[in-house]
Amino acid sequence: MAAIKVHGSPMSTATQRVLACLLEKGTDFQFVPINMAAGEHKSENYLSLNPFGQVPAFEDGDLKLFESRAITHYIAHEYSDKGTQLLIPGSNKDMAVLELWKEVEAHQFDSPSSKIAWEAFYKPFFGMVTDSAAVEENEGKLAKVLDVYEARLTQSKYLASDCFTLADLHHIPNIQCLLATPAKKLIDSRPHVCAWVKEITARPAWSKVLAMQKQ
Amino acid sequence: MAAIKVHGSPMSTATQRVLACLLEKGTDFQFVPINMAAGEHKSENYLSLNPFGQVPAFEDGDLKLFESRAITHYIAHEYSDKGTQLLIPGSNKDMAVLELWKEVEAHQFDSPSSKIAWEAFYKPFFGMVTDSAAVEENEGKLAKVLDVYEARLTQSKYLASDCFTLADLHHIPNIQCLLATPAKKLIDSRPHVCAWVKEITARPAWSKVLAMQKQ
Repeated sequence: MAAIKVHGSPMSTATQRVLACLLEKGTDFQFVPINMAAGEHKSENYLSLNPFGQVPAFEDGDLKLFESRAITHYIAHEYSDKGTQLLIPGSNKDMAVLELWKEVEAHQFDSPSSKIAWEAFYKPFFGMVTDSAAVEENEGKLAKVLDVYEARLTQSKYLASDCFTLADLHHIPNIQCLLATPAKKLIDSRPHVCAWVKEITARPAWSKVLAMQKQ
Repeated sequence: MAAIKVHGSPMSTATQRVLACLLEKGTDFQFVPINMAAGEHKSENYLSLNPFGQVPAFEDGDLKLFESRAITHYIAHEYSDKGTQLLIPGSNKDMAVLELWKEVEAHQFDSPSSKIAWEAFYKPFFGMVTDSAAVEENEGKLAKVLDVYEARLTQSKYLASDCFTLADLHHIPNIQCLLATPAKKLIDSRPHVCAWVKEITARPAWSKVLAMQKQ
């Protein structure tokens, strides 16, 4: 039995972030589906894994974690010698640049992209009505973030360096949702962002995450 | 001249986070005040330091950073042998617990506490009208977060371990604002949270940050 367990839903972007990371590393793991429609993420048993009642939760032997970005941080460090190198090993200054772009994802990109994904991707999927004003407001915010990315991606192939790192990986789930919404235009109109999006969504590990949604 | 420069405002919680970290470490630094009322954070010169036009920005020799939590991460690692030990040196599993509680601050605590701080602390300060419904909604969200903290703080003195770490430090600026709003009741009614808040806001480094607001 695998020591690593991921509890979550293949439809959840936070769960996808962790799955993509594990699949980049090629480490064995067991996926434990959580039926959110049935409220399993609010059960007493699940709350002992994640007291906020959100997916995913993670176990590696006796270590229990939640918060998707804390989980990917652990995987990248603990399994640094396996699969894709997702960090920038070397000086604290090199690692600082990686942390910077991870924080940009978390504090600049995540909010507007998650709101657009909710309104224009998940709501139609669940038969709910999209709030067009909320989409427009967040498209404006996302456009400004992507302007900074466009400038950055003229300097390096990926956000933190010329290699793919956690900073890029963390973006993939929300980017995949955006590609299925009218906000795709914000990507298509920025050539360096567009090339970066093509690269990161074409990764074999990500294809495996998408395949898990169809199982 | 100090190699480290912090560009920001002593009134900004994100700037305060970086100042508190540097003062815990006892490293020399130069503080460069940015006059936000005059729009200095949107000037071309400042945008070359932080393309999002937000405070703070940070320099250590030729390294330029922004995003407060990326800056504190760098300081804690680069100056790990100086002043307060803000990490949990040791195994990846110990560090993972620190990362977990840093992520909880960033993705659970920050949003409701920042919204309450804006509505009930900064808006009255600037002569603007508080949106009571927004305060109430975010007090409800914050109460749920603090319930998790109350349970956690029965297990360890601080969030990530029995020692003060970055995970605690990142909370201090918003906590200080909350103490001056009616949301203080959410802290006072939870004994372990209340004791933790007293500890982290009484740190000498934090007193020095507060003193900088009066200069």
